[in-house]
Amino acid sequence: MTTTAPRKVCVVVTARPSYSRIKTALHAIDAHPELTLQLVVAGSALLERYGTAVHYIEADGFSIAARVFNVLEGENLTAQAKTTGLGIMELSSVFANLQPDVVVTVADRFETMATAIAASYMNIPLVHIQGGEVTGNIDEKVRHAITKLADRHLVASEDARQRVIRLGEVPETVVNTGCPSIDLAAAVRASPALDFDLFARYGGVGERLDLSGGYLVVMQHPVTTEYADARRHIELTLAAVASLNLPTLWFWPNVDAGSDGTSKGIRVYRERYRLPHFHFFKNMEGSDFLRVLANARCLVGNSSVGIRECAYLGVPVVNIGTRQDGRQRGPNVRDVPYDTEAIVAAIQQQVAHGLFPPSNVYGGGAAGAMIAAELARMGLSFSKRITY
Amino acid sequence: MTTTAPRKVCVVVTARPSYSRIKTALHAIDAHPELTLQLVVAGSALLERYGTAVHYIEADGFSIAARVFNVLEGENLTAQAKTTGLGIMELSSVFANLQPDVVVTVADRFETMATAIAASYMNIPLVHIQGGEVTGNIDEKVRHAITKLADRHLVASEDARQRVIRLGEVPETVVNTGCPSIDLAAAVRASPALDFDLFARYGGVGERLDLSGGYLVVMQHPVTTEYADARRHIELTLAAVASLNLPTLWFWPNVDAGSDGTSKGIRVYRERYRLPHFHFFKNMEGSDFLRVLANARCLVGNSSVGIRECAYLGVPVVNIGTRQDGRQRGPNVRDVPYDTEAIVAAIQQQVAHGLFPPSNVYGGGAAGAMIAAELARMGLSFSKRITY
Amino acid sequence: MTTTAPRKVCVVVTARPSYSRIKTALHAIDAHPELTLQLVVAGSALLERYGTAVHYIEADGFSIAARVFNVLEGENLTAQAKTTGLGIMELSSVFANLQPDVVVTVADRFETMATAIAASYMNIPLVHIQGGEVTGNIDEKVRHAITKLADRHLVASEDARQRVIRLGEVPETVVNTGCPSIDLAAAVRASPALDFDLFARYGGVGERLDLSGGYLVVMQHPVTTEYADARRHIELTLAAVASLNLPTLWFWPNVDAGSDGTSKGIRVYRERYRLPHFHFFKNMEGSDFLRVLANARCLVGNSSVGIRECAYLGVPVVNIGTRQDGRQRGPNVRDVPYDTEAIVAAIQQQVAHGLFPPSNVYGGGAAGAMIAAELARMGLSFSKRITY
Amino acid sequence: MTTTAPRKVCVVVTARPSYSRIKTALHAIDAHPELTLQLVVAGSALLERYGTAVHYIEADGFSIAARVFNVLEGENLTAQAKTTGLGIMELSSVFANLQPDVVVTVADRFETMATAIAASYMNIPLVHIQGGEVTGNIDEKVRHAITKLADRHLVASEDARQRVIRLGEVPETVVNTGCPSIDLAAAVRASPALDFDLFARYGGVGERLDLSGGYLVVMQHPVTTEYADARRHIELTLAAVASLNLPTLWFWPNVDAGSDGTSKGIRVYRERYRLPHFHFFKNMEGSDFLRVLANARCLVGNSSVGIRECAYLGVPVVNIGTRQDGRQRGPNVRDVPYDTEAIVAAIQQQVAHGLFPPSNVYGGGAAGAMIAAELARMGLSFSKRITY
Repeated sequence: MTTTAPRKVCVVVTARPSYSRIKTALHAIDAHPELTLQLVVAGSALLERYGTAVHYIEADGFSIAARVFNVLEGENLTAQAKTTGLGIMELSSVFANLQPDVVVTVADRFETMATAIAASYMNIPLVHIQGGEVTGNIDEKVRHAITKLADRHLVASEDARQRVIRLGEVPETVVNTGCPSIDLAAAVRASPALDFDLFARYGGVGERLDLSGGYLVVMQHPVTTEYADARRHIELTLAAVASLNLPTLWFWPNVDAGSDGTSKGIRVYRERYRLPHFHFFKNMEGSDFLRVLANARCLVGNSSVGIRECAYLGVPVVNIGTRQDGRQRGPNVRDVPYDTEAIVAAIQQQVAHGLFPPSNVYGGGAAGAMIAAELARMGLSFSKRITY
Repeated sequence: MTTTAPRKVCVVVTARPSYSRIKTALHAIDAHPELTLQLVVAGSALLERYGTAVHYIEADGFSIAARVFNVLEGENLTAQAKTTGLGIMELSSVFANLQPDVVVTVADRFETMATAIAASYMNIPLVHIQGGEVTGNIDEKVRHAITKLADRHLVASEDARQRVIRLGEVPETVVNTGCPSIDLAAAVRASPALDFDLFARYGGVGERLDLSGGYLVVMQHPVTTEYADARRHIELTLAAVASLNLPTLWFWPNVDAGSDGTSKGIRVYRERYRLPHFHFFKNMEGSDFLRVLANARCLVGNSSVGIRECAYLGVPVVNIGTRQDGRQRGPNVRDVPYDTEAIVAAIQQQVAHGLFPPSNVYGGGAAGAMIAAELARMGLSFSKRITY
Repeated sequence: MTTTAPRKVCVVVTARPSYSRIKTALHAIDAHPELTLQLVVAGSALLERYGTAVHYIEADGFSIAARVFNVLEGENLTAQAKTTGLGIMELSSVFANLQPDVVVTVADRFETMATAIAASYMNIPLVHIQGGEVTGNIDEKVRHAITKLADRHLVASEDARQRVIRLGEVPETVVNTGCPSIDLAAAVRASPALDFDLFARYGGVGERLDLSGGYLVVMQHPVTTEYADARRHIELTLAAVASLNLPTLWFWPNVDAGSDGTSKGIRVYRERYRLPHFHFFKNMEGSDFLRVLANARCLVGNSSVGIRECAYLGVPVVNIGTRQDGRQRGPNVRDVPYDTEAIVAAIQQQVAHGLFPPSNVYGGGAAGAMIAAELARMGLSFSKRITY
Repeated sequence: MTTTAPRKVCVVVTARPSYSRIKTALHAIDAHPELTLQLVVAGSALLERYGTAVHYIEADGFSIAARVFNVLEGENLTAQAKTTGLGIMELSSVFANLQPDVVVTVADRFETMATAIAASYMNIPLVHIQGGEVTGNIDEKVRHAITKLADRHLVASEDARQRVIRLGEVPETVVNTGCPSIDLAAAVRASPALDFDLFARYGGVGERLDLSGGYLVVMQHPVTTEYADARRHIELTLAAVASLNLPTLWFWPNVDAGSDGTSKGIRVYRERYRLPHFHFFKNMEGSDFLRVLANARCLVGNSSVGIRECAYLGVPVVNIGTRQDGRQRGPNVRDVPYDTEAIVAAIQQQVAHGLFPPSNVYGGGAAGAMIAAELARMGLSFSKRITY
């Protein structure tokens, strides 16, 4: 009988939301006897302006194999391209040092392409988590391009599995694990009480609000292909929510071309109008955030959290604009265009409706363990051929 | 009646073979009244070690809008990744300066990914020429990933067109123009005489050979996924061809990880053995090269020229190893593994057979004009959705 | 008689304060018949977080030859090094495109080294403005290193001229033009009335203040070699100034490793304490800022404005810490350590003293014209030898 | 009594000649109980085209802490600038990983600036070896600029020590250790017999030569500021040496803008003329090379080996052109311009003269040990002030 060294699995996390989305998978990899986790933290996950996700990662007990600073500052799309180019240059050095057996890239943010290219060009087997979905901006191109670079696909829904196979991937290399973010939501659904003081724990900007009568949560990101409109779009939402006079917990957008438009829109609006029922947060630890969602009357904006976790939790969602176009939805989502009146009406209807029955469309709560098992079992090939 | 400015079409050429392959399209774009050509020359196309393709480009009458030096030197795969990262950084500056209406990227060499990412991340409509084919190495990943980043697809065969559509691209965005390299071959087929002294015109290394009794042409590139074997593979071919005692025109490989293995193999072999019937060339102007091919008894190696131009010209080909796996073939190709005896036998059979009837599988000679027409007519969208 | 084309003079501006400092030279170059200005805007001068100096530059009537985004985001010194490396890569492309006859770099910020290296490595004559001074941090290394890379030195004081010559530069290549920032101050000294509403014009954060009874101006930057202390240092100043209860106009620091410490210190302090007599500005057009200074009771902090423009204007200055160590001073400056009590005492003494007699130690108001004349007259050599 | 951890001394070697020059210092650092060597190999020292110095480094028993590929390929000065920019980006990551207490940079090749900037910007004490000398091209700017960035200076001659102090460095930080290359020459001088078969050991190109009647050694590099003339210069030397009909051992130039001109000049000349008494080598292990020099009738070209090691060995040198201008010489050097006749005459005179008496101008053979001792003893400051 021979014993082999554990597989070195290098996971690259480039942003706060990506971390939340795969946290249970990271724990499962870390705990798996046949796997060694090499966690690389890069991009906006290191930056204070975007909530320094790296602090949460360390607080969760992970040790960090390498930090990669590659965010080129600038309020334009060129900066996104250069951030990606820089990411390739830096990550290829990191991979050369760490010598991983497998590299894992998560979802479809623009800079994840850097992970995919560095790994595939260096002949390291590449695993893509959460491919096969459909949305409405540059992510759409990035996601499917990474599918074509990846050797193994761990997807979050049956719909996504079918789509990856149609893209010409060998069916045996495509596995539906569900989404690890649902693993976290499962714990929260089991015990959803909002049993901590979020103002004390997270500070933020604005007055302390009385949440006992219910509250809204808002989270709206800029849409890459609608870059120039980011500021106008956020102002429409600001006007809608401000008019409702409900206690509102507003979360800042993450880094993206146009996030300066979005951020600026929020900042200017806040300085111009008194918003005593608004409180702004930069970020929140994942399970705290889920607890906040689970108790919300409605989530407003365009976050994928509304599509995934809220489906499982049954929380009503008003989804604004094109960012989540094409993603499978549970019954909890009401879609509206960029239009203040439509947003107001939809929020009122969702608040009136209250909680929806839970949906398992994005998995049943064991995705992290399934991902780790698959990483231990999969073949380590980095060569593939389209199936047709 | 309104007159509009011509569309600015930015074509990025990163290597000598890519240039040959789209030269007639470049002329057609340059001549089209509704198009302005912005020709960017990058990568190995600028380097002396790889034949300074840029000299031929200028000699052909093109003016060059920008030169991009992005080849990072190093005998490993990391250098390919970094060359691509650097290419993104440089090309994004070039696109910001040139403000093209459309960017065109050609085929599937690893560094063409830089063009695709820079353009798509900057919301510039991206046209991919010669997607949809199938081969056996990293090109396979790169080619289909670029398809998923591109907005319009001008493919070289019906087979390729069907494959791009199956990849989820909107059928109206996929057009079979045939391959522009066949346009050049059409002129040569019409008048194939080898009416110039190639030793005087191109120098090269080795004795002047008597070609009047027929000759072989050899062109063998390293295969990315077989990087470590590059030297052994070239030695098998060297041994096979050396044993045949036929006048042999050998062309150096282009830049790739492993080309140092290939180059070194050739260099060492040449210093160890007397090879009086070999002559080595670094490169040759495209139509001269086609004329050399058209009069060859057989092309040996793994160049795509054997699959495309030689199909149209009917020249016998011995295709070695995996590099052209999965590409449609005409009847002129005989495939062999990396094996000296098999190579020898196949060459002997092909030489004995002589010229094959021509095949139009990669187009009929008007691809350049069709590409220009399509660039003038196409919609300028940079947002798309998978069809399923 | 022959006419020659005007010399192409490429000036690279990388930050707001550098622009203010050479604005009159830029106008003089632009207006000179034998010179063509190629203005490149780079680094933090393009970024909203640092006041988007590029908007002022365009409002002043300059056209911009190239924009270079090279600020790598990250709260550490590695980011400064990488920003400089990236600057070299980008600027070398810009110089290759613009083909300047001369490149001009200003002062001693870390990223100006990128301009100096790109130009000198490309054999373009390099002119350094404001070398030869002495300060107390990384600027000290950068400034003298650039002197050794530069071919011509246009310095701001006699003291600086002597020092550059002692560094082994040929005396004929070193010219004391005075500092162009004094050119602007000359106009303000002639007519110093604060005749505009700065709250209306610049917004900023905080209450509208009554300035009629006098006010303080504060401007404190982090010191590179004291990176880890940036936050503590700014808190000492905040405490000192807050205790004085004088109307205070506070200007944000520019980008530097540690500026996040400085910025955060300010932000947190502001959220914790009520500071009704503080108003925060991000930036201000140069001559407006000089007017604000000219009417201030005292400038507090570590800005070089206190050493230069305030000497000429006679404005009392409390200079804190090591950042301006070794720079020649007029009689208007009182130096204090990082110590709240010492800062408070010095401000009180300076406020009590009132305006000082003007000093010409940094020039008499015609530096811009002298710089342009020197650029037109100088030899275009890029090769030099140390004088000893 | 406390024991402290050994100091981590990170030495960056970027080229074959730099390695030879500090090899004894590396051994002494490695052996010193209070020091830990972190050896970083970068630039052309990793590349096959330039002799893969890294193989010799490993064969000498050193373990390599990091490899940095940063050579951007291209036949122009822009590539030198970009190689340096890339070097900063890569080395700053390396330093962040290795966390050295001290960084050591060697001499004055253009890319050593990358080491100097990365270290000084990251507040790591920087030691410069072999500053303070004088030469005639871009090295002159680079060398003195690095002096101004460095915190400690270990120079090779008294002349150099005086010059660094005149540059404003604190005298206590400047130590004349002599040149470590002389340490190697000391062993060779003690036992100079050419007791190995260099053709068998190093291969190379050309016939096996009979060296028993004496031979010439040639080593000529391009001069950066005379970039365009590189090919013409090498042809003058080729013509001169070819006319002498003496057995000639010719060494290829190292990487530099223009080395392609130099290399091409050699290659073309070699293909055009029969040179039966020439043998070309790419590189040679240091002490073998010194043994070859020690037995040569004359060294021809512009290598610094002629100035340093040959002074100590007493070998006659014909030094061509400007590259070594301003360096202290022993009596063994005869300087000539770029002129075939002058080169021929000088070689004939030097061959006729024979061996010169040894000179200790560049040290007496213990430089390596002195450098290690100084690295263990020096203060670890990274902040300095010019002395005047």
